[in-house]
Amino acid sequence: MKLATLKLDPKQRRDGELVVVSRDLRQAVSASDIADTLQQAIERWDAVSPLLEKRYDELNSGRAVGAFVLDMPSLHSPLPRSYHWADGSAYLNHVKLVRQARGAELPESLWNDPLMYQGGGDAFLGPYDDIEAVSEEHGIDFEGEIAVITDDVPMAVTPEQAAGHIKLIMLVNDVSLRGLIPGELAKGFGFFQAKPASSFSPVCVTPDELGDAWQDGKLHLPLTVHLNGEKFGEPEAGPDMIFGFPALVAHAARTRHLGAGAIVGSGTVSNPDPDGGPGRPIADGGVGYSCLAEVRMVEKILHDEIKTPFMRFGDRVRIEMFDREGQSIFGAIDQQVVKYPSP
Amino acid sequence: MKLATLKLDPKQRRDGELVVVSRDLRQAVSASDIADTLQQAIERWDAVSPLLEKRYDELNSGRAVGAFVLDMPSLHSPLPRSYHWADGSAYLNHVKLVRQARGAELPESLWNDPLMYQGGGDAFLGPYDDIEAVSEEHGIDFEGEIAVITDDVPMAVTPEQAAGHIKLIMLVNDVSLRGLIPGELAKGFGFFQAKPASSFSPVCVTPDELGDAWQDGKLHLPLTVHLNGEKFGEPEAGPDMIFGFPALVAHAARTRHLGAGAIVGSGTVSNPDPDGGPGRPIADGGVGYSCLAEVRMVEKILHDEIKTPFMRFGDRVRIEMFDREGQSIFGAIDQQVVKYPSP
Repeated sequence: MKLATLKLDPKQRRDGELVVVSRDLRQAVSASDIADTLQQAIERWDAVSPLLEKRYDELNSGRAVGAFVLDMPSLHSPLPRSYHWADGSAYLNHVKLVRQARGAELPESLWNDPLMYQGGGDAFLGPYDDIEAVSEEHGIDFEGEIAVITDDVPMAVTPEQAAGHIKLIMLVNDVSLRGLIPGELAKGFGFFQAKPASSFSPVCVTPDELGDAWQDGKLHLPLTVHLNGEKFGEPEAGPDMIFGFPALVAHAARTRHLGAGAIVGSGTVSNPDPDGGPGRPIADGGVGYSCLAEVRMVEKILHDEIKTPFMRFGDRVRIEMFDREGQSIFGAIDQQVVKYPSP
Repeated sequence: MKLATLKLDPKQRRDGELVVVSRDLRQAVSASDIADTLQQAIERWDAVSPLLEKRYDELNSGRAVGAFVLDMPSLHSPLPRSYHWADGSAYLNHVKLVRQARGAELPESLWNDPLMYQGGGDAFLGPYDDIEAVSEEHGIDFEGEIAVITDDVPMAVTPEQAAGHIKLIMLVNDVSLRGLIPGELAKGFGFFQAKPASSFSPVCVTPDELGDAWQDGKLHLPLTVHLNGEKFGEPEAGPDMIFGFPALVAHAARTRHLGAGAIVGSGTVSNPDPDGGPGRPIADGGVGYSCLAEVRMVEKILHDEIKTPFMRFGDRVRIEMFDREGQSIFGAIDQQVVKYPSP
């Protein structure tokens, strides 16, 4: 099943309207008679999801009353806001490269103990919304990732138990301000200003929708990233994910209950070389990367010179995932960076 | 004006029911005809607050229809969950002592740049709810703090602009698992498992309710903490707060908009000695502390021996604030630590 959230007047209906989306992403139909919003649906998932599945079947077979042609920019992130947004960093090639760029070491413990930060969930961007930034000096970067939405997860679940709480899957652009990270991490409390509002793919899907691409709580397909219309990366999301989503959700829930609608992210998708090297940019015949920080570090390693700048006002990033038949699964995140006029 | 949230069936009505509370905390009356929940009220604060103020006046003068005797344990935290929970650390004596305990230095930058971490807001505890913990080995600690609730705060506001977005004030118990902190901070991403669910005072109040105790965006009254019925601390919350709430809110909003209902905390209230020393426990004639980590460090400094253990199952902490006439302002946070039975 595929679900999405129509944008409504943000002052009156911040959480938008729940819609069911057809498998081919061409059509949608309101589900607000079943649950007003995706947040409400996930809070009563066992009762609500069979009704949504039924409507999904009707929509795919052309029998849904009130179906309409889907206009992607009319969609918000599936959860326009969330009470819990936690982002892991399960692709250690990413961690290795960004730490190398900061001159920081990779602790051995990261192979056994997931790295995860708590993000702010109050004001996500829509998948086509501009990324407002105060200054290019902040080192504006994208991070292409995968994320899951859970129902209520009890404290201290095992990864096996956590797997059953993963209800929906989507893509993320975890916007990062690289220029603010070193100062912030030096203070010891982790990211804060360096992680402005994230955005999510217009459509989220149930695990069954992914067929055998969803295995061991990982999504075994490439993530496609374009920068200003040119392919920037298509790393495989499956093989190099050190911790699957069940382990990440269990990590998040180790000392507290997670409320329904919690979002847990994978971290930036990244593939090392088969020999453990840092991979190669598309231009050098590699699969590329899902963020600028990595390609910059690799340029330095390969050519001793950083060529790729961070994002500038007007730059555009597009993040998408296609199934084996070339069909977009989640729709695209497609965002332009713009200068924010200080209030 | 004083507001609170009645607990309702948590599966059906997670955000409870908004009530107006009398100044003396003895009575309450529903406000659900004005706004169902506090979250809904804060999203439309300019339109809603005059109606709530009117009901507050009626309640205080004995004219409110449907008023009932208030039973504190029937209340949840004012926001049972929040899309944004950010906690500063504006009392540097606290930062100094807990870092000393970990053998970490206090960077000079902390005098100019607020320390702040992002917390999880999906499942706050009620003020009388048990604190469930998996193990005493985690080093269970309380942290007595003050927090504010904002309406929508635009990105990059100045502290002066941020001041106008502070709509409500309350107390916090920012439960901390000291045993998990060093390992977590060593990974570089800040707190996660070390900060389980927080709880808030049963009642939140508008700034005008505090009279001249609210000055420069700080609350100039002592915070009273009892541990197992014995006074543990009553440090002054005003003078040693290095950054007032307007500066903390502006810090949180530097690179992103804050959605209405964002909570920003002060950090653990702590007073150094006039000569810059670390203060003294109540037993040694001082004003004491608002968390165990500090008293443990001071015991080590003063007596070269840590006597006070972290919280054990069955221990109880009570956090409250009284006005100059001895009247409780927010009601008490009063919580017992219990063992959580792993699922």
